[in-house]
Amino acid sequence: MASSLTAAYPWTTAPLISCAPMRLIANASLAATVSLADGLGFIGAGSDISTLASELSNARDILSKANLPSPTGVLPIGVGFLLWGAPLKDTLAILSKPENIPAAVWLFAPRQPEDLKDWAEGIRSATSNKSKIWIQVTSVQEALAATKLAQPDVLVIQGTDAGGHGAAQGAGIISLVPEAIDAITDLCKTSSTPLPHFVATGGISDGRGVAAAIVLGAQGICLGTRYLAATEATIAPGYRDAVLRASDGGVSTIRSSVYDQLRGTTEWPAGYGGRGVLNASFRDHEAGVKFEDNKKLYEEAVESGDKGWEGERARLTTYAGTAIGLVTKIESAENITREVRDAANKLLLPGLRASL
Amino acid sequence: MASSLTAAYPWTTAPLISCAPMRLIANASLAATVSLADGLGFIGAGSDISTLASELSNARDILSKANLPSPTGVLPIGVGFLLWGAPLKDTLAILSKPENIPAAVWLFAPRQPEDLKDWAEGIRSATSNKSKIWIQVTSVQEALAATKLAQPDVLVIQGTDAGGHGAAQGAGIISLVPEAIDAITDLCKTSSTPLPHFVATGGISDGRGVAAAIVLGAQGICLGTRYLAATEATIAPGYRDAVLRASDGGVSTIRSSVYDQLRGTTEWPAGYGGRGVLNASFRDHEAGVKFEDNKKLYEEAVESGDKGWEGERARLTTYAGTAIGLVTKIESAENITREVRDAANKLLLPGLRASL
Repeated sequence: MASSLTAAYPWTTAPLISCAPMRLIANASLAATVSLADGLGFIGAGSDISTLASELSNARDILSKANLPSPTGVLPIGVGFLLWGAPLKDTLAILSKPENIPAAVWLFAPRQPEDLKDWAEGIRSATSNKSKIWIQVTSVQEALAATKLAQPDVLVIQGTDAGGHGAAQGAGIISLVPEAIDAITDLCKTSSTPLPHFVATGGISDGRGVAAAIVLGAQGICLGTRYLAATEATIAPGYRDAVLRASDGGVSTIRSSVYDQLRGTTEWPAGYGGRGVLNASFRDHEAGVKFEDNKKLYEEAVESGDKGWEGERARLTTYAGTAIGLVTKIESAENITREVRDAANKLLLPGLRASL
Repeated sequence: MASSLTAAYPWTTAPLISCAPMRLIANASLAATVSLADGLGFIGAGSDISTLASELSNARDILSKANLPSPTGVLPIGVGFLLWGAPLKDTLAILSKPENIPAAVWLFAPRQPEDLKDWAEGIRSATSNKSKIWIQVTSVQEALAATKLAQPDVLVIQGTDAGGHGAAQGAGIISLVPEAIDAITDLCKTSSTPLPHFVATGGISDGRGVAAAIVLGAQGICLGTRYLAATEATIAPGYRDAVLRASDGGVSTIRSSVYDQLRGTTEWPAGYGGRGVLNASFRDHEAGVKFEDNKKLYEEAVESGDKGWEGERARLTTYAGTAIGLVTKIESAENITREVRDAANKLLLPGLRASL
């Protein structure tokens, strides 16, 4: 690691704020707006690349008007993939087109760790090393394995407070980030592995959380839950309003596999769970209601639309992290990005900030 | 809150470092040593006050030699109680003796929230308001209830990364501390409730964690797991060595009630669980081994002494938090206290530090 994280994405301002590549939610408009606010936005391609080319085209349209000083021939946004589902060859065919090359590609949830190597090598080759490789990990052991296998440019260290999918069992970033950074730094000192940059995610919704993550050793951070309330996010009003209403995220959210089961998203490898607002679907599951009955109630809730997120009997999945209580208003992704960054910088030593 | 947290404990240096009142482990020697290193040590009386008078006497002996500039007539240490078990009247009889009055009393885990009020009023009356009231909470709703009921001097905000007992379900301090502080600050602005100071705990084992907690808004912090490796702690060598060996605490520790059940500590109110190293006792429990059989194996492990903490078949309870991987050596509580504080201060803005 010769230079700072922001130097690799020259339109960004420290500390680097990114939006999580939330499947179905983080679209071209959200990603581009984060980048236009001097952050790094990610499109959430997830496991399905059927709309990837059109989303990249949409992002290009938005970004071309703004003329960001990005590296030549690179779109100043990233794209995130769920490796258990996304097809590598077809993905490379899209990303290798000169007009599509993203500044960063975010890899998560491989069926086996070795898939990280295939993806990292494939993307580096297809993009002539123009796309930086970001790999999200949820533990120290995953961080070590990913670094050895794929030499990522960035390790995204995800704490268990994160919304949506993560390790079913894990630590918060308060302990995970420093321990993972120490372990990777040791590894890279004693081998020829290049030291990655570190981005923290999970439980961060405002400038205090951003600054805390930087103090823990991260060079940049990623927000998910906070961007659920961005005007640019693709999100049902019922979902968004449920996020705005919820508070006390340690009590009001839970990490579980039941929401995936009810939605029929059953392809995730073992060991993952999704954190969402604790609702009647989960309570009935815990109370021993038969899956078929719970599923029927869930499907009725789907039919009811936004009402399916309302009240004591809310049943629809509301993936969100424990920092949900700090998300209290709808605003543009530009405002969110600038506000959390400015607030964080007021809490950081100038020398520390200058290193980012 | 007119003045800083350290002003209330004039022998301390900012940021205030305290040791958790760990039952059976945090004795007079550990508590006094932390205070002698310009922190605030807590004796863990827990639910049993049978040794409290002698522990206070021991602490007095150690502290009197050092002549700490504590407020007149106050022992410069604290004592922690588990309200579900400790007897209020007998406790007050001990704490009210002029030579026994501690600088702080830490209250946790009442059978019902109203007990916090009885304890706070009882202690304030018995000690002529000399003992400050610290109340540990695990959620925003608990923080609000405790503040309304008992007007604590200090709210200890415990994240789910903490070792030992805490809420069975909860958030890490990355989101819990800022949300709880915002909620309590709002409450105190709109009522006559005095604003408490805030201490963060859960997942902090080094200076980076301390600094992160301060950046999140805490004025002081509390370490538990790190002090398990203090030379002054009362801890079996097998337990201590298991702490030193463990790493990657999100994977290697788990919050559960099975360890309490096996130990016969069954009086905790509903809603709590203890985080400890994930061992054969837990794995067998998860695999459906009958409780009686698991208990028998546990008792055989107890008979085997320190070996009961060793290897793949380790069965003895090893309460520790997710920051266990940052605990790598045995050292004096004085070293620990000074080192984490000094390291934290290098990461903090001078103006922020001065406010603590």
